[in-house]
Amino acid sequence: MAPSFVQNGGFAAPRAATTSVTGRFASVYSDVQSSRVNHALPLPSVLKKPFTIVDGPQSSAAGNPDEIAKLFPNLFGQPSAALVPSDDSNAALPDQKLKIGVVLSGGQAPGGHNVISGIFDYLQDRAKGSTLYGFRGGPAGIMKGKYVELTSDYIYPYRNQGGFDMICSGRDKIETPDQFKQAQETSQKLDLDGLVVIGGDDSNTNACLLAENFRSNNLKTRVIGCPKTIDGDLKSKEVPTSFGFDTACKIYAEMIGNVMVDARSTGKYYHFVRLMGRAASHITLECALQTHPNITIIGEEVAAKKLTLKNVTDYIVDVISKRAEDNYNYGVILIPEGLIDFIPEVQHLIAELNEILANDIVDEDGLWKKKLTDQSLELFDFLPEAIQEQLMLERDPHGNVQVAKIETEKMLIQMAETELEKRKQEGKYNGDFKGQSHFFGYEGRCGLPTNFDATYCYALGYGAGALLHSGKTGLISSVANLSAPVEEWVVGGTALTSLMDVERRHGKFKPVIKKAMVELEGAPFKKFASLRDEWALKNSYISPGPIQFSGPGSDAISHTLRLELEAEA
Amino acid sequence: MAPSFVQNGGFAAPRAATTSVTGRFASVYSDVQSSRVNHALPLPSVLKKPFTIVDGPQSSAAGNPDEIAKLFPNLFGQPSAALVPSDDSNAALPDQKLKIGVVLSGGQAPGGHNVISGIFDYLQDRAKGSTLYGFRGGPAGIMKGKYVELTSDYIYPYRNQGGFDMICSGRDKIETPDQFKQAQETSQKLDLDGLVVIGGDDSNTNACLLAENFRSNNLKTRVIGCPKTIDGDLKSKEVPTSFGFDTACKIYAEMIGNVMVDARSTGKYYHFVRLMGRAASHITLECALQTHPNITIIGEEVAAKKLTLKNVTDYIVDVISKRAEDNYNYGVILIPEGLIDFIPEVQHLIAELNEILANDIVDEDGLWKKKLTDQSLELFDFLPEAIQEQLMLERDPHGNVQVAKIETEKMLIQMAETELEKRKQEGKYNGDFKGQSHFFGYEGRCGLPTNFDATYCYALGYGAGALLHSGKTGLISSVANLSAPVEEWVVGGTALTSLMDVERRHGKFKPVIKKAMVELEGAPFKKFASLRDEWALKNSYISPGPIQFSGPGSDAISHTLRLELEAEA
Repeated sequence: MAPSFVQNGGFAAPRAATTSVTGRFASVYSDVQSSRVNHALPLPSVLKKPFTIVDGPQSSAAGNPDEIAKLFPNLFGQPSAALVPSDDSNAALPDQKLKIGVVLSGGQAPGGHNVISGIFDYLQDRAKGSTLYGFRGGPAGIMKGKYVELTSDYIYPYRNQGGFDMICSGRDKIETPDQFKQAQETSQKLDLDGLVVIGGDDSNTNACLLAENFRSNNLKTRVIGCPKTIDGDLKSKEVPTSFGFDTACKIYAEMIGNVMVDARSTGKYYHFVRLMGRAASHITLECALQTHPNITIIGEEVAAKKLTLKNVTDYIVDVISKRAEDNYNYGVILIPEGLIDFIPEVQHLIAELNEILANDIVDEDGLWKKKLTDQSLELFDFLPEAIQEQLMLERDPHGNVQVAKIETEKMLIQMAETELEKRKQEGKYNGDFKGQSHFFGYEGRCGLPTNFDATYCYALGYGAGALLHSGKTGLISSVANLSAPVEEWVVGGTALTSLMDVERRHGKFKPVIKKAMVELEGAPFKKFASLRDEWALKNSYISPGPIQFSGPGSDAISHTLRLELEAEA
Repeated sequence: MAPSFVQNGGFAAPRAATTSVTGRFASVYSDVQSSRVNHALPLPSVLKKPFTIVDGPQSSAAGNPDEIAKLFPNLFGQPSAALVPSDDSNAALPDQKLKIGVVLSGGQAPGGHNVISGIFDYLQDRAKGSTLYGFRGGPAGIMKGKYVELTSDYIYPYRNQGGFDMICSGRDKIETPDQFKQAQETSQKLDLDGLVVIGGDDSNTNACLLAENFRSNNLKTRVIGCPKTIDGDLKSKEVPTSFGFDTACKIYAEMIGNVMVDARSTGKYYHFVRLMGRAASHITLECALQTHPNITIIGEEVAAKKLTLKNVTDYIVDVISKRAEDNYNYGVILIPEGLIDFIPEVQHLIAELNEILANDIVDEDGLWKKKLTDQSLELFDFLPEAIQEQLMLERDPHGNVQVAKIETEKMLIQMAETELEKRKQEGKYNGDFKGQSHFFGYEGRCGLPTNFDATYCYALGYGAGALLHSGKTGLISSVANLSAPVEEWVVGGTALTSLMDVERRHGKFKPVIKKAMVELEGAPFKKFASLRDEWALKNSYISPGPIQFSGPGSDAISHTLRLELEAEA
């Protein structure tokens, strides 16, 4: 049934059967891509036999349950759902043909295609004759009614492949009454029984709003979310991890490990590596646990300790100086992309700059600087010239300073350089400092999913199919017990409202799924904190090497997940 | 005998037995590192049984044989040596204990540790009781007599591992009479029968000068070279490839493939990827053959066609405009690190700038620009402002413009942006251009060697041992027939003088092994050239995925090597 894949040493293996369908997917595969397409995915035992769905107790909210109850009158308090084996044929789900839609929302994460494959296979296995529609280009595809029917031939070449290119994604949101109306129209036009929203915290909040909206308008369309983000900041007790985190971290860790071996071999460079992850530092922490760098900055710790940029620089420079005493004039330093967002004084400076730049003339003599508060002026003068210029010149369309564009790793190199030079003058440092900067970002978002992400996503999708089939709405597909063998994984759904709190915006309460930040009392951070002093001075580097799909380490789960699950147990 | 490696899921596997010896190697391994340490390496059949060494015909030089003959009176004309199976016990090499030194020279390349392992194992297998010394920190270790005795326990943890950290490398050269004297002293002090120099073109030239020097001074120390460089520019008919090229290209290609999937999924970025390789563009060409990018710039072609920077920009912008007509506002563009070194007009501009900056005052009003030739002025004004500033401000210690520091990929993004904006005004382009820059460099130099590099290096080292044992000097270890199974690989040595030509420097002839540039008439470039127009407009991306050590693709050789060997056959 499936098109065959001719392998000829990595070169041009034509895939006529599928290119005509998708129109844009690669007509050629590498050996590894081919082998992954044909890789069979294991399912948790519960999904391999007849199962029934058992509801748990009523749920509440992560915060402000009263407000959440008002915002979700139909959905608030829903129980979690668990799939359990069942021999009772009366408990079996109805023999029904379903019409289901699926949408990818937000940034890419390895494994998205497998969620879709999981939904599709569920429908094939358990609700024969069902139809699966893929909305194109994210939520905009729902609103504009842009979709494609996903068939076996269509989906096949994307199995276990990275990227979101099967139906692509987008960052639009369904927010206004008009947009909800459009979504309703599309659902009705396609006669949808269900919709799976694959996305991060915002997209899952949106999925819940959509579920509530459909329910309150008596639409039959049910909505199930799936936890996606390489940043790893969408998780809870029931949703142990977001997909993509595992693969992205392992790709970054491969590169970091290589750079470490290079640093040790060359003996003359400090590599400053900035890692993707703006809001939370999970990626940086996980990569540190995988590779043992000399210095790791965790944004949440910087914020909790109210550190200044000078504090961070001093910490880096202290380690570098101490290492120089041991004749180690090299090292590896990990920095989260969002570092400066965690530093309160930088936020103040930027707010003041935005104000000044909007209302005042910036004179060349620097008189404008007098409008800065003392603290902000001190910080501004502490910044390297290139960063000062960047702050003054690069603006977004609203005229605001573009914090995201600041290359934090280069900034820290310059600041370390200046400080070390000062210490050298004072006779407190006798080393030789050369910084090299790296940003590992896009390389990690679209890699081939690891065995873990491939299997996890498939189970998430398969489970989402089951939840929709059983009439559930407003849940997020959740697969747990992940440190056990796949057979023993637990499959179910968690009330999205139970993950929510409210934020006050423009005088109104808005529901939000709070981003899961790095917990300073959590097991992963504590493990890191207990080892970092040793890593700082000794060279305990680990080089994880390239992701393997078979053999040693190929089924390992992330340190973060493992440590969190161990701590829970 | 070998220390055991406890694996515990990627975490802290202590290696007490070896850390005490090396003092600096990681005390911990990842699962993949552990499994690679224990990976058994296959040997070509000829190295598994009794062999004898057969000399070929007299050799000449790559150019100016008369001058090479004068420079190497003892070594010029040496035949190549081939190892052939032998049942004649009289032909066996002498039962002798050897003292051999080994040195790593220049930049790192995956596989260096396996060359050393190969030499060591040769001595263990065929010259029991021999001693292997590792010179520390490159050729300086020879001159300063800094070395370590390499034992089984010492070498073991580095088998199949990346980096050069076993004995580290260095960039010093043995050039002056004093330095040759120091090398002689070390050789005599250690009573060395032989020395293996693992390095690139310069280091192998140096190895040959050392061999000549030792021979002419009647030292018994023989010298054998080994071809190392990720850049792939040390090769000849007998030396089909330099080690490290295979691994580095596969690491870069993994990242490029990921970025391609990202580009196609997101649909809104042009990724400009600069790849290591200053002198020759082999890495860029190989990565293009592995991944099928939309645009690939090959420095040798730019030079041969005498293209200007404007030509290169126009080519890029033409493809981008044409893709925009098909609604493809994304793509991937590969650029060799050394691109601007290949553009004559840039060289002229830089020479003029160096002259002006050394002798004139650079006034703010730009009057100094009048000293530029018309052509250079035009080019200077064509450059983005940031690059102009970089050219004027960043100097090396001699006051010269630092071409190496120019981030070519960012420069090209800015130039494309400007040109596309112009075309938009003229109604000739209606797309939306956003560039993202990447530099893939250090990540690739120290990765775990691929199966190919691991096996190839082991054979190079084992063969080098055999050559020294048989009394050879001034040869480079060469292993050929590389597209056949390992058993059928051909092992021998090639006269280093046969790879040489001379260059006139400071009024004297200097011997040089010419860098092997990308041949525009060679099979790899022709293959690329025949496909690039299709790659430009269609999206035929291939994502090679992470290097696998077992399973599909794990034994593949590079496209460059395969195509070259096919063309020869």
